[in-house]
Amino acid sequence: MQTLSAPADPAALPFLPLIYVAWVDGDLNAQEIDAIRSRIIETPSIRPDTRTALRAWLQPDDPPAPRSLVALLDHIREHAHNLKGVDRESLSRLGRALPDAEPTPETVAAMEAVEEALGLQGGEAAREILDEHASTPEPPGPSFDPQAMARLLDGEYREMREEMRAFLSGSQFERRYGLSKEDKREDVLRWCRELAKAGYGALSYPTYAGGADDMARFAVAFEMTAYFDVSLTIKFGVQFGLFGGAINMLGSERHHKEYLPETGTLELPGCFAMTENGHGSNVFDIETEARYDPETQEFVVHTPVDRAHKEYIGNAAAHGRMAVVFAQLIVGHDRHGVHALLVPIRDEQMNPMPGVRIEDCGEKLGLHGVDNGRLWFDQVRVPRENLLNRYSDVTAEGEYVSPIPSVNKRFFTMLSALVAGRVSVALAGLAAMKSGLAIAVRYGEARRQFGASGEQEVRLMDYRTHQRRLLPRLAKAYALDFALRYLAERFVKRGEKDSREVETLAAGLKAYATWANHDSLQECRECCGGQGYMAVNRFADFKADTDIFCTFEGDNTVLMQLVAKSLLADYRRQFEDVRPFTMLKYLADRAAEAVGEPNPVEARKTDSEHLRSQEFLLAAMRYREQRLTGSLARRLRSRIQGGMDSFHAFTECQNHSMAAANASVERLILERFAAGVETTADESLKPVLERLLALFALSRIEEDRAWFLEAGYVTIAKSRAIRAEVETLCTEIRPDALALTDAFGIPDRLLGAPIAT
Amino acid sequence: MQTLSAPADPAALPFLPLIYVAWVDGDLNAQEIDAIRSRIIETPSIRPDTRTALRAWLQPDDPPAPRSLVALLDHIREHAHNLKGVDRESLSRLGRALPDAEPTPETVAAMEAVEEALGLQGGEAAREILDEHASTPEPPGPSFDPQAMARLLDGEYREMREEMRAFLSGSQFERRYGLSKEDKREDVLRWCRELAKAGYGALSYPTYAGGADDMARFAVAFEMTAYFDVSLTIKFGVQFGLFGGAINMLGSERHHKEYLPETGTLELPGCFAMTENGHGSNVFDIETEARYDPETQEFVVHTPVDRAHKEYIGNAAAHGRMAVVFAQLIVGHDRHGVHALLVPIRDEQMNPMPGVRIEDCGEKLGLHGVDNGRLWFDQVRVPRENLLNRYSDVTAEGEYVSPIPSVNKRFFTMLSALVAGRVSVALAGLAAMKSGLAIAVRYGEARRQFGASGEQEVRLMDYRTHQRRLLPRLAKAYALDFALRYLAERFVKRGEKDSREVETLAAGLKAYATWANHDSLQECRECCGGQGYMAVNRFADFKADTDIFCTFEGDNTVLMQLVAKSLLADYRRQFEDVRPFTMLKYLADRAAEAVGEPNPVEARKTDSEHLRSQEFLLAAMRYREQRLTGSLARRLRSRIQGGMDSFHAFTECQNHSMAAANASVERLILERFAAGVETTADESLKPVLERLLALFALSRIEEDRAWFLEAGYVTIAKSRAIRAEVETLCTEIRPDALALTDAFGIPDRLLGAPIAT
Repeated sequence: MQTLSAPADPAALPFLPLIYVAWVDGDLNAQEIDAIRSRIIETPSIRPDTRTALRAWLQPDDPPAPRSLVALLDHIREHAHNLKGVDRESLSRLGRALPDAEPTPETVAAMEAVEEALGLQGGEAAREILDEHASTPEPPGPSFDPQAMARLLDGEYREMREEMRAFLSGSQFERRYGLSKEDKREDVLRWCRELAKAGYGALSYPTYAGGADDMARFAVAFEMTAYFDVSLTIKFGVQFGLFGGAINMLGSERHHKEYLPETGTLELPGCFAMTENGHGSNVFDIETEARYDPETQEFVVHTPVDRAHKEYIGNAAAHGRMAVVFAQLIVGHDRHGVHALLVPIRDEQMNPMPGVRIEDCGEKLGLHGVDNGRLWFDQVRVPRENLLNRYSDVTAEGEYVSPIPSVNKRFFTMLSALVAGRVSVALAGLAAMKSGLAIAVRYGEARRQFGASGEQEVRLMDYRTHQRRLLPRLAKAYALDFALRYLAERFVKRGEKDSREVETLAAGLKAYATWANHDSLQECRECCGGQGYMAVNRFADFKADTDIFCTFEGDNTVLMQLVAKSLLADYRRQFEDVRPFTMLKYLADRAAEAVGEPNPVEARKTDSEHLRSQEFLLAAMRYREQRLTGSLARRLRSRIQGGMDSFHAFTECQNHSMAAANASVERLILERFAAGVETTADESLKPVLERLLALFALSRIEEDRAWFLEAGYVTIAKSRAIRAEVETLCTEIRPDALALTDAFGIPDRLLGAPIAT
Repeated sequence: MQTLSAPADPAALPFLPLIYVAWVDGDLNAQEIDAIRSRIIETPSIRPDTRTALRAWLQPDDPPAPRSLVALLDHIREHAHNLKGVDRESLSRLGRALPDAEPTPETVAAMEAVEEALGLQGGEAAREILDEHASTPEPPGPSFDPQAMARLLDGEYREMREEMRAFLSGSQFERRYGLSKEDKREDVLRWCRELAKAGYGALSYPTYAGGADDMARFAVAFEMTAYFDVSLTIKFGVQFGLFGGAINMLGSERHHKEYLPETGTLELPGCFAMTENGHGSNVFDIETEARYDPETQEFVVHTPVDRAHKEYIGNAAAHGRMAVVFAQLIVGHDRHGVHALLVPIRDEQMNPMPGVRIEDCGEKLGLHGVDNGRLWFDQVRVPRENLLNRYSDVTAEGEYVSPIPSVNKRFFTMLSALVAGRVSVALAGLAAMKSGLAIAVRYGEARRQFGASGEQEVRLMDYRTHQRRLLPRLAKAYALDFALRYLAERFVKRGEKDSREVETLAAGLKAYATWANHDSLQECRECCGGQGYMAVNRFADFKADTDIFCTFEGDNTVLMQLVAKSLLADYRRQFEDVRPFTMLKYLADRAAEAVGEPNPVEARKTDSEHLRSQEFLLAAMRYREQRLTGSLARRLRSRIQGGMDSFHAFTECQNHSMAAANASVERLILERFAAGVETTADESLKPVLERLLALFALSRIEEDRAWFLEAGYVTIAKSRAIRAEVETLCTEIRPDALALTDAFGIPDRLLGAPIAT
């Protein structure tokens, strides 16, 4: 290791900055250092003794001592002190301009050759040496008024939302971390009582039963709790939505009057006991039995085999006193399918009722504040009147009566009571997604890491990768916001005619929104690095608590299969002419005609205006849905014609039907987003909404662009243009990112995360 | 609601099964029921009174009472009792064959028309009526010996793995769920002491310091703990790998002898204090200072601003007594960059040392058994000898000496001590991934849900969607197994020459494996439904504990950018001719030539043999990597030539560089998998390994097939064929799924999940 000093020969001085950088860069190997040395030594105008000195500076096997380099840097800085402008723009210019330097043309040529070869032509290396700090320009302000956007997103129920924001920001709502499940359950029960006391629990019940007959406001209350704590959301949903909702939807007036008032006040905590250990998705085949005993006019509720015990039942492990139990109804020798009955499970002292066995499900991945449990019934007797008898009843004499003749149809009618749960879960999922995005975007604006040398470190939001991770998801949250408000409205206003359609909407949007939330939370967590891993920053609970959203209230994969099946039925209706009830017969032949061939001119258009146009985006989404549905129908038909039964035919085409269902849900979301933008009264919001719409749709098309290429719907050039346009849209939306998450209107106290407030 | 009885007219009897199904199916609307009725009524050979009776059965607004339908079914079953074969194959045949039925040709034609229109031609509806249960064939046994596969996967360190499996299955290792973080930390500390006592902690240390000088077996010990509890893995890694490893790698013999023996036995619990609140990924710019005081021959360690406190430091919150602190070394007026020093943080009574402030990081998303904390230093003095001085030292007189002249190069040399951590985290991630797959596949084999009517319910693993979710991930786990064993071997045997290459390997594989694990655990959790949400089934901890794997030991996105940068350097070396140290000059021009144009004949081949051939798969992966790297170089060059500095140029091309890095890592994994299969001695394992290899590679190409289409590397027909081939491979591998997870060799006691054991 050598201790060296700067050479005295003026002809050598200009090389100093280059030599310093060569060593300090640390990235040059021995061969490269050798090459620099040769180039310098070859310069004819350097004196032999200087040459020797410079050679000594460039010995790969005998590097200069660290303090020699420090001295060299000091020397350069000291002398470069008064240099300005062009002289600071590169290492060779800097070297040439040092005082006393007397560069010959050969020296200059040598320096420039070395500089170019090192890839150091730019000003970066010179700035680093001179320790110049450039200031990064602050990002421009948002292109719109976040308050106006917040009003738009809050929509019809703005007042209710504002009321809930204020209520949940109250001092009685205080998050605590690291609690045992027992303590957390008590916190959540207490919060739930606060909500009940304020009347939010009973909102959807009939006025004669203590409610306000207002499903829409109930759904808003449910959704808003998710910003505070998702265990609370689920406890609230179990008690008032599932337990109370089942009494409301499946029971008759006598049940409403007897049970709903106490349900709404939480004096009667209850369970929704549908799922069994052996049958989760396949509710039709649950095995719990309710056999009518005409002697005593009672139902005997019984768990016939161990796997038929009720599983994951919220409110069962600790707080529930009654349960709506779903069981196969048996009258005499006849089985009438799944029915719901009210069964007391604990007495006033909270001891299990005779014949009822209760177990705690124990530790879960999340939702630690919800007391999930298991229930077994051993010949438990309840009065005949405990059957929730809106759709069917058993007379005192033991006659089964129902206006709905088919077991299947009764089953699906009863199950439509579940739709409220799916709508609600989708809304809560979006609330979690928005919270995660708000936290990650705020952190990304504040946090800086790395940077060009000499400059301030760069905001995370200014990295392309960061924009790519967060902004398409932000656009998706906006798209889902419009779609879910539409769903909630359709749900509240649904009648018999469109109930099936609303069920399909709810199934598809629940699956799509909860998967989107899961994916988005994870990306946001990672974008917050180690901070995202700290419980106080909220990803821990949001991720854990909403993870099960993909499973409960209908497994997402199963729900998407339902969507696919309904697509086939819709498809059938399109061709309702010759034989109205033919399922798969005609549509297969006609699929191609109806969808038509892609337009070759459109397929080649790559200009930005076209790619962002709703005309193109909607057409692409519609084309994909129709074509996938048509080809699915063809594949099913050929199997069924070949003698396969429909179950196995559908099973073989499952991956295809998942694609069709996804295409359908995305088309729907885009349509609702477009309709929402179209009818936005505030013109100032439209440009950013249109960019978000384009980013949502284009990034979805980009994700599936292989399919569009395969279908001939886009050319290779267009596919590439779509990718580039997505990136451009990200950079255009980036200055609005913070304001777009502010417009979610989540108060700091509710958001809570220290990295975001 | 009508109470009806079966018609007496023999000509009407054949219609009964159809009428029953029409009502019970529940899916027919009023119009459809009407249409059936018309078709029946039009049949001329039916007597007027029978026609009236049948018409009564088909009144959409006055459906039959449930018990009438039950009676009708009883009637059909009773009379169909003795029917066989062809007569049971459809509803019309069943109707015609009922005793006393006297079908006329017109009746038969009418029945068949109704049947076809309802889409009920198959045997399904008839079987349902007759309640026939077909048995699903059991899946065939595996195509290979799982024990032989387990030996292959265990590889060179089979004995060590078996030893660890037995050790970790001992009664001292007992998982408990729902503990407070305090209790969990004590469990983990106790487990860690057991491992230390058995000598596993010190394995990698020099023999003169109580170790066995065996990095390879240390890595295996670390990896195997992940099957038991990931908090233990990380605590073990912090103590023996990071804290002890830093002393071992950055210190000299005097440090080894003084500290490693007590480190290996866990008598001296220690921390690795690198990350700061303000600087995580950007370690180069950490702000903690260590200033040399020549008067006292001490270093003064100091936290100059609050954001410079050490953050997320394992072992700091509760158990650590010493820390390796990374700080900017200052000698006189010179700053020499980041160095590591040993700083005592707690005394024997576990009180913080003077000037040291410690805070608990509190609740985290996972790793509840690891006591992460924060450290502040207020002018804390340590002796000069506490500098870990392998790469640089300060003499008593205050002279800074180092054989490495450049601050950068010293920094990267020191950082290479981090590589062990990356290799280890990748291995632990794969252990979690394998555990999740083993649990999900076992559950998928045991759990049945839904089924064709009359058949036993279907195993989840027999659903195409389920196969699509689990099997490509299983193939990826196998691919990673081969790649990571290669990485571990390269790491253990690395020398100065290939250390940079091993660092890149470790960076890329760590990022890829931990993302793969995260994705796979989530899919597996969802595939286990509600059971996957129960803590005892282990997804809760695996997901939460390994979530941070994507962030710590190098943020995955940052690591992938490193991979991309090294690709550019490699690329440069390929063209090392005229000017050896030119970075981006030539490669951009030559990129196209080097990569070449896709072969139009190859691009069109779609046969299965071709698609599964290693020739095609490897060529595709290599082509993608080279082409993406070349185009990345071109894009960077055009920006730099346009005057942009390299930092901003790279930032603008980040998404491109992520794609190039991913392509490179996948190419490498495939190559290692192929090499592993090639050298497998046991021929009986090759067929299934080849299928797994094809599934891994093809599913990756499928995922990115848009890119291959855009590049002209595959035609549309080939792209579709790839999709189909992935699905075919899934069905071919499905019978081997269970055996493939058994071959991971995870003992039931370690796997633990009740749903899998």
